[in-house]
Amino acid sequence: MDRKADIGLIGLAVMGQNLVLNMNDNGYTVAVHNRTTAKMEDFLAGPAKGTSVVGAETLEGLVGMLESPRRVMLMVKAGPVVDSYIEQLIPLLDKGDIVIDGGNSHYPDTERRVKELEKHGLLFIGTGVSGGEEGARTGPSIMPGGASQAWPAVKPIFQAIAARASDGTPCCDWVGDGGAGHYVKMVHNAIEYGDMQLIAEAYQIMHELLGMSHTEMADVFGAWNQGRLESYLIEITSDILRTVDEDGSPLLENILDAAGQKGTGKWTVVDAANLGIPVTLIAEAVFARSLSALKEERVKAAEILGEPKNSSAVLGSGDRDAMLADLEAAVFAAKITSYAQGFMLIREAARENNWTIDFGAVAGMWRGGCIIRSAFLGDITEAYDKNPELQNLLLAPVFATATRDSVPAWRRAVTRAIGAGVPVPALGAALSFFDGYRTQRLPANMLQAQRDYFGAHTYERTDKPRGEYYHTNWTGSGGAVSAGTYNA
Amino acid sequence: MDRKADIGLIGLAVMGQNLVLNMNDNGYTVAVHNRTTAKMEDFLAGPAKGTSVVGAETLEGLVGMLESPRRVMLMVKAGPVVDSYIEQLIPLLDKGDIVIDGGNSHYPDTERRVKELEKHGLLFIGTGVSGGEEGARTGPSIMPGGASQAWPAVKPIFQAIAARASDGTPCCDWVGDGGAGHYVKMVHNAIEYGDMQLIAEAYQIMHELLGMSHTEMADVFGAWNQGRLESYLIEITSDILRTVDEDGSPLLENILDAAGQKGTGKWTVVDAANLGIPVTLIAEAVFARSLSALKEERVKAAEILGEPKNSSAVLGSGDRDAMLADLEAAVFAAKITSYAQGFMLIREAARENNWTIDFGAVAGMWRGGCIIRSAFLGDITEAYDKNPELQNLLLAPVFATATRDSVPAWRRAVTRAIGAGVPVPALGAALSFFDGYRTQRLPANMLQAQRDYFGAHTYERTDKPRGEYYHTNWTGSGGAVSAGTYNA
Repeated sequence: MDRKADIGLIGLAVMGQNLVLNMNDNGYTVAVHNRTTAKMEDFLAGPAKGTSVVGAETLEGLVGMLESPRRVMLMVKAGPVVDSYIEQLIPLLDKGDIVIDGGNSHYPDTERRVKELEKHGLLFIGTGVSGGEEGARTGPSIMPGGASQAWPAVKPIFQAIAARASDGTPCCDWVGDGGAGHYVKMVHNAIEYGDMQLIAEAYQIMHELLGMSHTEMADVFGAWNQGRLESYLIEITSDILRTVDEDGSPLLENILDAAGQKGTGKWTVVDAANLGIPVTLIAEAVFARSLSALKEERVKAAEILGEPKNSSAVLGSGDRDAMLADLEAAVFAAKITSYAQGFMLIREAARENNWTIDFGAVAGMWRGGCIIRSAFLGDITEAYDKNPELQNLLLAPVFATATRDSVPAWRRAVTRAIGAGVPVPALGAALSFFDGYRTQRLPANMLQAQRDYFGAHTYERTDKPRGEYYHTNWTGSGGAVSAGTYNA
Repeated sequence: MDRKADIGLIGLAVMGQNLVLNMNDNGYTVAVHNRTTAKMEDFLAGPAKGTSVVGAETLEGLVGMLESPRRVMLMVKAGPVVDSYIEQLIPLLDKGDIVIDGGNSHYPDTERRVKELEKHGLLFIGTGVSGGEEGARTGPSIMPGGASQAWPAVKPIFQAIAARASDGTPCCDWVGDGGAGHYVKMVHNAIEYGDMQLIAEAYQIMHELLGMSHTEMADVFGAWNQGRLESYLIEITSDILRTVDEDGSPLLENILDAAGQKGTGKWTVVDAANLGIPVTLIAEAVFARSLSALKEERVKAAEILGEPKNSSAVLGSGDRDAMLADLEAAVFAAKITSYAQGFMLIREAARENNWTIDFGAVAGMWRGGCIIRSAFLGDITEAYDKNPELQNLLLAPVFATATRDSVPAWRRAVTRAIGAGVPVPALGAALSFFDGYRTQRLPANMLQAQRDYFGAHTYERTDKPRGEYYHTNWTGSGGAVSAGTYNA
């Protein structure tokens, strides 16, 4: 080895391997280490053969191979494994060295680790990396946050290996302090859950209600991918619908309808509940996976409760075109609503954690490389660039117009699906949220009246300033004691 | 004071005061203490005048007044205040004494406290108390859990002051170990959020879509209260709709439509997300409050996005009766679905935490005294009594029949509301869940295909045993490396 390596990477599962090869392609020398040495040797003798990648059997060896300030990136399982490597690295590193966690860590862990490493004079970055195995290899979306002093030393590598948006901007920029990078990655994944669920519902409507063949469905998703829904997930959906099994039948129909999940979707729901931000579409998408997982129970329920009557509702081909047009508008409007909810959450989290986040830059980083990459994200970036103080994405002129114009079609698609017994939890939750969001007067006055009735919780009045609380002795009995420990 | 007091109670806010008076009515001598002595003196000279209630200015004094084993009940703000009192009480108490927390504590805190007090030879009970100020005074629903050895010493008092179901059974029984009592109370409150939201949506439909007067609406809720929806919340809704302001106009319309919330609803959503149980109706109810709280933003959104067009959709009186019948069926079926979701969560939590919970007894405790008390809970108790192994409430014959029979009306009510732009997040989420639950084949096969496509997550097949995982090289490119750290 003529010169020291630019960066060290620990953890050679698929994402780690592909990031290493990507860095190598971009002219960086990478030193690698893996807990199981055999796996590292296989990598060096296999995919990394002929590259400048070098291996280290020990962490000491790895650290010794690195240029100063050292950059060590962890691509290991989120959780205690990250802490264990950090603990082993601390005594081996010098002040100013940088540790980067590229796994799907939970943001409070990242907040904690930034502070812990700071005590040792080390700089910690927690970064989201999205794009799956292919993205990691050819250009992922990278969302780094943490110790901002480390950014200049990491930026050239990350921006070189990141995907590029259609205007050439790297899909990687500094997100913010502490756990901001992992937070944004968490919401990215939750939005991904939402996008996937919307597509699944559209597929279910096409398949069950419109009785379409797989080639027909593939064509429709292919056509959608030429329009405003252009995105990676729509594109692969078309591919999936065209893929046949060994016997020539659609492979999709042989796949079990029980979806798995990892942490990020549920973390987002948990955080949204704690912060009081109504991310209803994401919640429905996460819960839809939970419901799908109860496969055996559903089969039993179908017997006892009867299946919703889809078949009788199959539409003719004239109706079909109209319904497909409605569906496209419904998916697009629901998608806007979902992203609006996601950005509401990021905004509140930034306020709560004192992170300065450039929302337009966040959308910009998602334009390429990652699973939710799409043309649409460019519009979000533009909306925030035009108005950095934008209160809500739905209020940006471009999205206000798009959603308003979509409402009649959206409403038809949702009511038709519900009427035919095809569950559309995400499409429906989005419409319900959108209508509620633009309703001046929601029936929460009834909730407040009830809470005051049974718990003396008091209420505010429409004809009095906010912050003045009133109590009515609804029953005519009871005392004048104010509300105490009862919570409802 | 001739003899020692039966129980000590700390914290004289409205719930505490009323519980004390209730215990006194039932022949128990209660010693009370309050952090602010003046408040205690006001209570003793006011509501407690002429009773056998005695006051103690210090905790030492309070403990000295109590019969052995001592029973000390905390009715203070949930959180650090509870820990602070526990810390002060520990050195004052003897082995075998009992500390009871009757606040809305978070169940993990109760789990912790049971263990901590056990180390000191003390017995800790965490109990839910529901019923608001009136319930506390005349008979609440009480849900105790924790150190079961303490139950015999507490049972007589609790069952004496508790409400009674129509068959005379006290609405209080032992729930289970550790935090089980507070867990069940948490889910009770979340179900309460759901019930309230369903009523609010019904009110919104009547008010906005059917154009009904407040007297007409009060009559409808009054009529519903004579039928299968008979419940405290329906009853007070009728009262609320009849209540007029000083100028004679309906008071409800002067109440601000921005609903508050305390911890229990969001805790339930958080726990359900963590356990993977799809409590979609509760989540929508919690998020509906969050959305309502964005009052100023909604007013702005109504300007920019336009309000949903309700007024043009007002129905004639013939239609009205049909819609009201549909709505009653929709609320009932959604309510069954909501309770089914709640019991799914309790069941999973019991499994997770090794609590032995009698589900029928839980429903039994809710039959009287508490905010969600209703005739319907008797049916739940009966369903679990008939089949203690019941997998899901929706599969009990009585509820299977009721929901199936309600489906056409439920579907009409939901699609009509959505069609007219009246948001019905809870009614809609419940129907969507119900349809999904009885659908053998959900589109989660698409989700699994997508996850395998972009992340090599693998999938199971419908024609192969569960537990066998397959991967397709969808793109024809890419290597054979298995999925590693990428989570979606």
